Amino acid sequence: MHAVTYELIKKDEKTKARRGRIHTPHGDIETPVFMPVGTAATVKAMRPEEVKELGASIILSNTYHLYLRPGHELVREAGGLHKFMNWDRAILTDSGGFQVFSLGDLRKISEEGVAFRSHIDGSKHFFTPEKSIEVQNALGSDIIMAFDECAPYPAERDYIKRSLERTTRWLARCKEAHKNTETQSLFGIMQGGMYQDLRHQSAMEIVEMDLPGYAIGGLSVGEPKDVMYEVLDYCVDYLPENKPRYLMGVGSPDCLFEGVERGIDMFDCVLPTRIARNGMAMTSGGRVSIKNAQYERDFSPLDAECDCYTCKNYSRAYLRHLFKSNEILSSMLLTNHNLHFLVNMMGKIRESIEEDRFSEYKKSFYAKYGRF
Amino acid sequence: MHAVTYELIKKDEKTKARRGRIHTPHGDIETPVFMPVGTAATVKAMRPEEVKELGASIILSNTYHLYLRPGHELVREAGGLHKFMNWDRAILTDSGGFQVFSLGDLRKISEEGVAFRSHIDGSKHFFTPEKSIEVQNALGSDIIMAFDECAPYPAERDYIKRSLERTTRWLARCKEAHKNTETQSLFGIMQGGMYQDLRHQSAMEIVEMDLPGYAIGGLSVGEPKDVMYEVLDYCVDYLPENKPRYLMGVGSPDCLFEGVERGIDMFDCVLPTRIARNGMAMTSGGRVSIKNAQYERDFSPLDAECDCYTCKNYSRAYLRHLFKSNEILSSMLLTNHNLHFLVNMMGKIRESIEEDRFSEYKKSFYAKYGRF
Repeated sequence: MHAVTYELIKKDEKTKARRGRIHTPHGDIETPVFMPVGTAATVKAMRPEEVKELGASIILSNTYHLYLRPGHELVREAGGLHKFMNWDRAILTDSGGFQVFSLGDLRKISEEGVAFRSHIDGSKHFFTPEKSIEVQNALGSDIIMAFDECAPYPAERDYIKRSLERTTRWLARCKEAHKNTETQSLFGIMQGGMYQDLRHQSAMEIVEMDLPGYAIGGLSVGEPKDVMYEVLDYCVDYLPENKPRYLMGVGSPDCLFEGVERGIDMFDCVLPTRIARNGMAMTSGGRVSIKNAQYERDFSPLDAECDCYTCKNYSRAYLRHLFKSNEILSSMLLTNHNLHFLVNMMGKIRESIEEDRFSEYKKSFYAKYGRF
Repeated sequence: MHAVTYELIKKDEKTKARRGRIHTPHGDIETPVFMPVGTAATVKAMRPEEVKELGASIILSNTYHLYLRPGHELVREAGGLHKFMNWDRAILTDSGGFQVFSLGDLRKISEEGVAFRSHIDGSKHFFTPEKSIEVQNALGSDIIMAFDECAPYPAERDYIKRSLERTTRWLARCKEAHKNTETQSLFGIMQGGMYQDLRHQSAMEIVEMDLPGYAIGGLSVGEPKDVMYEVLDYCVDYLPENKPRYLMGVGSPDCLFEGVERGIDMFDCVLPTRIARNGMAMTSGGRVSIKNAQYERDFSPLDAECDCYTCKNYSRAYLRHLFKSNEILSSMLLTNHNLHFLVNMMGKIRESIEEDRFSEYKKSFYAKYGRF
């Protein structure tokens, strides 16, 4: 029995969308779900109670960042990541792979692992599948991710094939290294770029290992959205129905709808929190850049249809004033709103699947949101 | 009847400390009181509900800043400052005098008022007593302050005398200009530098105007603390017993104790909020600089005797990690703690006055806090 299990509740009649529930040692997660990102053991500009209040049941934290600062051994000594950051719901940690591969000239890949330099102080480090799992075991997150290579786009077929095969070998090493199977569950990651046969090959190899969940990696790396959707169309069919499916690094409303429609259960992205700090809000009428002069004397709420703390208590004029004045409260209020917007949207998506009207809900959402 | 009135509850037997209550259109204020500063219509890094939760009954906001951005007319259109910033308790606004006088080369003083350039965009402005009151009337704060000159330290006796006499003339103009006497109360400000006879002269002139409250200005401007205490020793005696006394711009624990001991009822300062953003905390054992290496693996709370949200839920190790990582949550948690510390300390001071043990409480506090 895995620490994390998936329960399929209902399948949509017209699409591959599905309503499910993931059981974890830190509570249940209703799916499809959006996971707010808390990179450095904090969802930026939010108290954890506020993240809970808006309905998030799981957050993502980054292994690469926590390994470098404050260090995974320190987090272990603190009693694990949940206790350290005062978050008692589920946590998923990534493997650090995506970050170290993103370092460009600062890293070097071999069969053994990846040598890299810290973006903080330039110090030298070596990450291997074993090391990534050791770090994640120390952090104590409920879901831990395999150490993989997220290949760039575009990339030659040969490179993608070699890369995915190494990712499979690394996954076997991750599984072997994983110590805390009773409290943490390891998810595998499918690679294969934009090549259908390679996606199929990757899926066959990782599904064989019978892991409690699978992610689709290597998407949202610069390819056009319709290419991503096309890849998703076939990818999901290669994954088992009784395991959760996680599309990594995707968080714009349209990508969430399109992902759900293709059978994805889990999403994460820094988008809602990052754009909030830049004064950008997601609203039922589309994106709002709060610094625009048109909101100077707009005393209406950010989103009249929203019942979040920000929209219940503040006007666009006030939010604009805070942003223009570089006030921290600006980031706090916009982050709260954007996370509420996506988490609430996912709740409505779940409801629409339960009531067999997912496609209708998607259509009405798109009509109001306008351009993405 | 003034909009704001003072009720004397109890006088300490051994010192001039006194326990009182200020009635305002936005609730009662138990005194002595510390007022958190919310310069730009936000107590930095805090939701207003959090400021209320830690027990603050009144905050201070800055007229100069709000006049420049977002503009007092905009705040008026928003329904006033309380509504604009979602704060339903009392607000005191300063006059803008301190800020424009601080601009140095950017301002020029005349009998009529002060010409200055905005620190934001260099635009030209002219502040007069009438203008300051007009702005504060638009903001709708419960207590508005007279437009005065806060003279520098050290300064020649002649300059101080001319300055305080102009401040008196400006006060008369402020009183004349004040429109909303039913909902807002104007406080006068005593000046006179470190000269006892000039302090006496200033007091006689402003007390004559029978205002609902009086502030002591021109202190904490660079003079040694014992000089400030000496001035306070006689200043307070020149003020009427049935009006609240406000010592402007003072907020370190020792200054609060010494001020209370000399009969002060109200204090404000950016100190607790500003040092919080620099990683500095006030604790029952003295100041703690959270970035220090000694706290790296310190899993105890910031202040073991504190029951604030921060101390109940986080360790010094976590707070240090947040600060080192430049996380917004660092400012949020430390601000919350520092404000709670001072507001809570003032609550204990009030209790000690009620129970005739103020001097004992002061002594025990000093013994634990150590160097200030």
